[in-house]
Amino acid sequence: MTSGATWRHRHLLGIEQLSSEDIVQVLDLAETFVEINERPIKKVPTLRGRTVINLFLEPSTRTRTSFEIAAKRLSADAVNISGSTSSTVKGETLLDTALNLQAMAPDVIVLRHSSSGAPHFIAKHVEAAVINAGDGTHEHPTQALLDCATIRKHKGRIAGLTVAICGDIAHSRVARSDLLALTRLGATVRLAGPHTMLPVGIEQMVEPGRVEVHARLEGALDGADVVIMLRIQGERLGAVSLFPNTREYSRYFGLGLRMAARLKEDAIIMHPGPINRGVELDPAIADGPRSVILDQVSYGVAVRMALLYLMGGGTTAES
Amino acid sequence: MTSGATWRHRHLLGIEQLSSEDIVQVLDLAETFVEINERPIKKVPTLRGRTVINLFLEPSTRTRTSFEIAAKRLSADAVNISGSTSSTVKGETLLDTALNLQAMAPDVIVLRHSSSGAPHFIAKHVEAAVINAGDGTHEHPTQALLDCATIRKHKGRIAGLTVAICGDIAHSRVARSDLLALTRLGATVRLAGPHTMLPVGIEQMVEPGRVEVHARLEGALDGADVVIMLRIQGERLGAVSLFPNTREYSRYFGLGLRMAARLKEDAIIMHPGPINRGVELDPAIADGPRSVILDQVSYGVAVRMALLYLMGGGTTAES
Amino acid sequence: MTSGATWRHRHLLGIEQLSSEDIVQVLDLAETFVEINERPIKKVPTLRGRTVINLFLEPSTRTRTSFEIAAKRLSADAVNISGSTSSTVKGETLLDTALNLQAMAPDVIVLRHSSSGAPHFIAKHVEAAVINAGDGTHEHPTQALLDCATIRKHKGRIAGLTVAICGDIAHSRVARSDLLALTRLGATVRLAGPHTMLPVGIEQMVEPGRVEVHARLEGALDGADVVIMLRIQGERLGAVSLFPNTREYSRYFGLGLRMAARLKEDAIIMHPGPINRGVELDPAIADGPRSVILDQVSYGVAVRMALLYLMGGGTTAES
Repeated sequence: MTSGATWRHRHLLGIEQLSSEDIVQVLDLAETFVEINERPIKKVPTLRGRTVINLFLEPSTRTRTSFEIAAKRLSADAVNISGSTSSTVKGETLLDTALNLQAMAPDVIVLRHSSSGAPHFIAKHVEAAVINAGDGTHEHPTQALLDCATIRKHKGRIAGLTVAICGDIAHSRVARSDLLALTRLGATVRLAGPHTMLPVGIEQMVEPGRVEVHARLEGALDGADVVIMLRIQGERLGAVSLFPNTREYSRYFGLGLRMAARLKEDAIIMHPGPINRGVELDPAIADGPRSVILDQVSYGVAVRMALLYLMGGGTTAES
Repeated sequence: MTSGATWRHRHLLGIEQLSSEDIVQVLDLAETFVEINERPIKKVPTLRGRTVINLFLEPSTRTRTSFEIAAKRLSADAVNISGSTSSTVKGETLLDTALNLQAMAPDVIVLRHSSSGAPHFIAKHVEAAVINAGDGTHEHPTQALLDCATIRKHKGRIAGLTVAICGDIAHSRVARSDLLALTRLGATVRLAGPHTMLPVGIEQMVEPGRVEVHARLEGALDGADVVIMLRIQGERLGAVSLFPNTREYSRYFGLGLRMAARLKEDAIIMHPGPINRGVELDPAIADGPRSVILDQVSYGVAVRMALLYLMGGGTTAES
Repeated sequence: MTSGATWRHRHLLGIEQLSSEDIVQVLDLAETFVEINERPIKKVPTLRGRTVINLFLEPSTRTRTSFEIAAKRLSADAVNISGSTSSTVKGETLLDTALNLQAMAPDVIVLRHSSSGAPHFIAKHVEAAVINAGDGTHEHPTQALLDCATIRKHKGRIAGLTVAICGDIAHSRVARSDLLALTRLGATVRLAGPHTMLPVGIEQMVEPGRVEVHARLEGALDGADVVIMLRIQGERLGAVSLFPNTREYSRYFGLGLRMAARLKEDAIIMHPGPINRGVELDPAIADGPRSVILDQVSYGVAVRMALLYLMGGGTTAES
């Protein structure tokens, strides 16, 4: 198992920091872990004696479980800290929490936090590798990497594809990280959502011509190779909200069979999960033949194994 | 360590699916794990590289701890997911949760769920082995197996014994699984409880003549070899309830010294825990010489090791 | 790795039970684990196949994490049980919880409990080694041991030093354990706090002449070698309280730059954490050159590894 190239990042804070070569390196390495995860004995000794702390100060069972399984399959010692039980409830600052954890000599701190920039902040103060597992409305880089791995698997490439991302773009860290990763690898991205959920000036984040903004779902889907439907947050609908209600949202921005017919025939349908069935995604689509949602989850473990391998201090170990 | 026979079940959903030979196979194998649990180094490499997910969507510290210890002593990677932190709080369906976990390639999913039939439902959709750790008021098969192991240890056999099960039979998954397992192994079971807590038609669950229903505790205890006192749920007593109050319950259906004198002299007293001391069980009985309650807990770990061994994909591994 | 001497304690319930030789033995052994924690592969096989249960019936992320990392670096199987999910919420007694855990054959039970004496109580009923991780207002022996290790590291010795402990002495298990450990090793301890937070008769806990009680912070700090600032519990300030409010507390008993100037020039500043910045400790002090607060955290892991090593049944294993 060799990563083929040298990994030059101490932390993974966002896709923003990664070159297309970096991204490809992670995707290639993830493929070897996909293979390991299909074996009866899904374990390599790479990170034996390394400590991975999953510091989830915002609840997320699925991402925490994915990182925990990834760490354990690399033989690392995984320790979970969740927000509800953390001493941050005692009023400790995030910096003090990070410095205290650092004093216990972890090799990696995986951080999920409700504030944008939290991982960048602690990365300046700890020696451990910091992996951003989602920070506020900023980035969710491991989600974007697993999305890229899934697309590449099914479409054979990413360059030249048209990928639609639909939903509450303005508040979605997934949309931001996906946009950065996909355009860096040469895809064209179409963003679609109600105008209250479309960010101002998003075109400036990426190279000119790589992103289109659509106020209606139809235009974004027409002839697209891939569609990523975002989870709609219920609390952003209804009174004092960005959209009247769930039914209206579903009618205009939900993906049903009729809407999906606008996609290319061999298009794939993705969702970061958990799905609101009947809101942003019709169950017939979620469970249909073009859905690759569960492949995303499988690649989640493999991509996180690749990242822990690259940054967990295990690169020098033989495995 | 060999199970002596071939295990033909992919999942353990209930005692209902098990033959007497299957049950005996688990009990025999559990004895070898009892021995391992008495060693200084309580660990075998059987399930190294296997992933066991404890999905407890209804709180249960003791059963989760028992499964977690069982998995770790077999060298599996154990991952806990509890209901309060699960993304099911985000409105995800149980099926989506199960499919997502399956995509992470676990070998076993241990499920505790408040709905009867939940493990059967997910078993149809996942490749992992599913072990029912208690579903609604339906079954709790690992409890029944540990109860059988405990009885067999102390009485040398199960066939021909008279076992009284007392309490809220109608709402007890423990009672249902115990009834099935004990009668299948040849015991006669007496069920006793207030008439509001006795299920209608329970006799039809088992072979004719194997079960008696008693409206008073006295009749169930007279000359019995074993008594299993069920935990009474406080919320089922008092206003809008199945019984007037705790004191009345304890008076008529609690097991105290005088009541216990009706049992055979060498009878054993069991309880699935946690005990409501002074309600269904007098402390003098719970801590008395005939109580085998803590043996039940020890067999809990051993029986769960046996089941993980049989269904965790470890049977082909040498250990 | 040898402890040099025989360890004669089955449990660690408090500093009260330890001789100065015992304490030095732990500190010496902890130094070897400091070295292991600095390696890339921070793991020894000492406690392989042993089960360590962290039973935290009062929330404490940092102490639980420290024990969990310590257990895992010794290759033990670590199982966490926290109060909010424990079956103690079902009304089970502490004794029943302990006996049930014992029936699962753990080697060590680490107990954090809100009641003074809880670890002593369960130690009488279980075969596992019990380590007190903080009981009520009574003792927090592992904190005192890591404090001694930190002081010895920085000052080269403990005998002859003057150590000030400041804050709510009367309600602090850290203060009690520190007082016992430091005086046993030959230090003089000055206790300082508002008179409502000073315990009556504390002098009788230790040898005559070893402890001074100060009603003002100034006198306690003058020429001291070490100061340990205790965390002030917000709920003990304000209405119906031991002190008017946070600002007043900070003014008279907080450690700022001016107050710290009273210490010896080479004095070190300690705090058990988590810090209330701006209440008992000025950030300029907490993050200043004399602060050794993070060394305390590092020694926390090392001292707990030493204790698990000594009491976890691992002494006979080669490593």
